[in-house]
Amino acid sequence: MTVRRYLVLAPGAFASRSAKTAHGVIAYGTDAVVAVVDPLHAGKTVRDVLPYLACDAPIVATVALGIAYAPTALLIGTAPQGGALPPEWRAEIEHAIDARLEIVSGLHDILADDRALAARAEAAGTSIWDVRVPPPTPLFSGAAWDVDARVLLTVGSDCAVGKMTAALELVRAARDRSVAARFVPTGQTGIMIAGWGIAIDRVIADFAAGAAERLVLEGVRRDVDGREPELLVVEGQGGINHPAYAPVTLALLYGSAPDALVLVHNAARTAIDGYDTPLLSYRELIRTYEMLCGSVKPAKVVGIALNTVSLDDAAARAAIADATAQTGLPADDVVRYGPHRFYDAIAPRIGEKTRPHTVIV
Amino acid sequence: MTVRRYLVLAPGAFASRSAKTAHGVIAYGTDAVVAVVDPLHAGKTVRDVLPYLACDAPIVATVALGIAYAPTALLIGTAPQGGALPPEWRAEIEHAIDARLEIVSGLHDILADDRALAARAEAAGTSIWDVRVPPPTPLFSGAAWDVDARVLLTVGSDCAVGKMTAALELVRAARDRSVAARFVPTGQTGIMIAGWGIAIDRVIADFAAGAAERLVLEGVRRDVDGREPELLVVEGQGGINHPAYAPVTLALLYGSAPDALVLVHNAARTAIDGYDTPLLSYRELIRTYEMLCGSVKPAKVVGIALNTVSLDDAAARAAIADATAQTGLPADDVVRYGPHRFYDAIAPRIGEKTRPHTVIV
Repeated sequence: MTVRRYLVLAPGAFASRSAKTAHGVIAYGTDAVVAVVDPLHAGKTVRDVLPYLACDAPIVATVALGIAYAPTALLIGTAPQGGALPPEWRAEIEHAIDARLEIVSGLHDILADDRALAARAEAAGTSIWDVRVPPPTPLFSGAAWDVDARVLLTVGSDCAVGKMTAALELVRAARDRSVAARFVPTGQTGIMIAGWGIAIDRVIADFAAGAAERLVLEGVRRDVDGREPELLVVEGQGGINHPAYAPVTLALLYGSAPDALVLVHNAARTAIDGYDTPLLSYRELIRTYEMLCGSVKPAKVVGIALNTVSLDDAAARAAIADATAQTGLPADDVVRYGPHRFYDAIAPRIGEKTRPHTVIV
Repeated sequence: MTVRRYLVLAPGAFASRSAKTAHGVIAYGTDAVVAVVDPLHAGKTVRDVLPYLACDAPIVATVALGIAYAPTALLIGTAPQGGALPPEWRAEIEHAIDARLEIVSGLHDILADDRALAARAEAAGTSIWDVRVPPPTPLFSGAAWDVDARVLLTVGSDCAVGKMTAALELVRAARDRSVAARFVPTGQTGIMIAGWGIAIDRVIADFAAGAAERLVLEGVRRDVDGREPELLVVEGQGGINHPAYAPVTLALLYGSAPDALVLVHNAARTAIDGYDTPLLSYRELIRTYEMLCGSVKPAKVVGIALNTVSLDDAAARAAIADATAQTGLPADDVVRYGPHRFYDAIAPRIGEKTRPHTVIV
């Protein structure tokens, strides 16, 4: 796996929510971020602007100035309104291409389909990686049922509740406990963080479960610090009663063939983001996810990872206690209170690998 | 909607199962089939070879001979092994293009991506319709929740059990009862039969529910014999515990926003086709489908359409009685015994339109 040195392009937006891909890569990425391009904060460091990221990379005004920090790749770190590439970004991307930086983009616009940029990259001898574009994937085959590592999948009450972050924090806790654990990325930010993966939501529906399976097989193929992987933590997507995204949720639920599930919920949310559909209760969510898994390969919900970012400390602790009271399961906010207590509580519940149901012929 | 006059290309294969697309179009299509190309049966009629299709179209040896019957389109009526276009078919397709026939194909190979064929079609002033290629579709919006027509979706215990056929037969029965009913096609054969539709399984996973919604909106846009559509019967896909195809099933379950479901099952099957995963029982299937619908917009299973083609008459009747005994629901084989009795039994159960759950703000 290539180790990249990223120059992050986020003009005018690095401090905003629209740069969450950049923030995720800085907080959790395996690749280094050597500098950020944002004229609004030029002269400061990342830590000056966003202390919680604990990163001392400098912020510069232009790609040209960022080149001094010897980056190997330009990360398009924000998602502009409407998905189209703003003209002033194009000049910066062209500059990066001419400096032979790899271009890494999570935009809806596929940069490699832009003939001018593609030709320029070819001429410069560098490449464009559109992380949203999935490779051709086969149908689900059942091979994921045979991996030796235990597979833990984060499932949610909705999209954008913290399933990726919970998965990353659980991997960190497992590694701190000397478990050979690997994060399995299934969405654009996760892919940029880990440097591999497939955006399952962009796969043709018939092959989405096959793509999830392929990620699990890839996850066990390489060692974790010289050891055979013991635990894969798969980043979930969407929510099982999300009117638009539930098919992606189900593709991961069957395709990644989990042995156990962690339910992730934003404690302040009551309806599906963007729709009026009410969120299911903890017990409804657990019953629905376990019933579906139980129809192919059983997996139980072993804990609840709460996102309490919008609550004060007392309300956060009350929400966590309530989740346990309603379900009898360990619950915690793995960002606010760290992942170790929660990991230690759920680890014994992950238990043995489950087997798929099979017809005895 | 164009009315086509089809010349069906099925060389050496018209009588085989691999020509099931052609058989479906002949049995249920709104377009006419004027002749079939299959040198193996040249000189006979469709009825001579497959009496149940009750069709007197002639079978000829070549496309050149078929042109005499004034077709407007060539239907690629079989799926060759491996999906690649056999060289001897290419010459026949070229002949049809030169005769200015529209080329209608359900092959995995996208014919419009074949530069030589595409250029030839353009030069001849005709077009290629690859029915598997979906149009760009938006995200699910909730607009399908607001249509006035009742929406009935066929859901299955597995793929290839008869969901399309059950939907077509129910539309026929409803029309015989003077209900303005329309079949909503979601797979390649259904699309060729109806002359419109989207192959949901080929849509990018994030947009699959949106594609199902768009079909419902299209289904109510045009009148049915001068009347506003009262009933849409949506062709289901896959099965909810199908390890590979369930995401497509769920996209239709949420995206088509049904008011009621008909469960379709092949009475002789015990495991998911191609996998060892056991089929769910009737009660498990009903509980799972109703629980999922109930989390977004409620819909009940109102009847069970059994496919008893592999059973003798006594066994078929016993299977039907057993389905009713296990579930308390009307059950029948709508092909073997006709759709009217079953339609009359379920019609009162379709009842009123259901409303989606909404959060009261």
